[in-house]
Amino acid sequence: MRLTMFSDLALRVLMFTQAAGGRLVTIDEMANAYSISRTHLTKVVNALTRTGYLSAVRGRSGGLRLAIPADQIVLGEVIRATEPDFALVSCFTSGEQCVIANCCRLRGVLDEALAAFLAVLDGKTLESITLKPGDFRVLVKTDQNR
Amino acid sequence: MRLTMFSDLALRVLMFTQAAGGRLVTIDEMANAYSISRTHLTKVVNALTRTGYLSAVRGRSGGLRLAIPADQIVLGEVIRATEPDFALVSCFTSGEQCVIANCCRLRGVLDEALAAFLAVLDGKTLESITLKPGDFRVLVKTDQNR
Repeated sequence: MRLTMFSDLALRVLMFTQAAGGRLVTIDEMANAYSISRTHLTKVVNALTRTGYLSAVRGRSGGLRLAIPADQIVLGEVIRATEPDFALVSCFTSGEQCVIANCCRLRGVLDEALAAFLAVLDGKTLESITLKPGDFRVLVKTDQNR
Repeated sequence: MRLTMFSDLALRVLMFTQAAGGRLVTIDEMANAYSISRTHLTKVVNALTRTGYLSAVRGRSGGLRLAIPADQIVLGEVIRATEPDFALVSCFTSGEQCVIANCCRLRGVLDEALAAFLAVLDGKTLESITLKPGDFRVLVKTDQNR
């Protein structure tokens, strides 16, 4: 059972941006810190900007910062925004017509398990997984670790 | 977030076998009922036999039945046996060395969510998702729906 790499990166981008403590961060900086392709990160950053988690300042000295306080960024909501679906088994997507689709009781059980999974993440915010700038070694340059 | 197709099929095989109520079922029969490749089902059946959920009777009139009562087949344990991993994010697999691996607090949060997911499934058995033979339409032939 896996989340998509997109969600994984989204969470890492938010953690990095928060650790910078308000300083504008760049995609290049995050790509270097995590050794991840700039292209992938750009898509993730665009999605996080579109969904209101990041705000982007354009221009030469521009960059990204959190658009809302970290204690208001609920991890369950981030995952819901970044996962394409929670189709634990194939019949959850509309296309498949399983012979037992109309009477299957597995779906209810899996829905319940998924709700329990998301409930834990709905109780956590970005604030609950805060890192210090120094945790990213030399790469997050803020007043605290210069 | 998805389970593998392997787990999906494993659960469906167990549901089908249980609905047959002790009658020996065949892979062909299940492949027809679910419109699923015989090759995929064979791998799943082999795994379920190896892990002690199914017992196979060889020979011309052979087939498969549950090796243990349905109320002792815990869905959480089935999923643990059939999922290759629960690597929700990439760092859960041993290979990846993320820059924040040693201090990251996301892993603990995701572990907690995963535990909640599995706890729900640990509280359910195959018995809790029992279907009647007729739910598989004409395909499960038992005394009840002849």
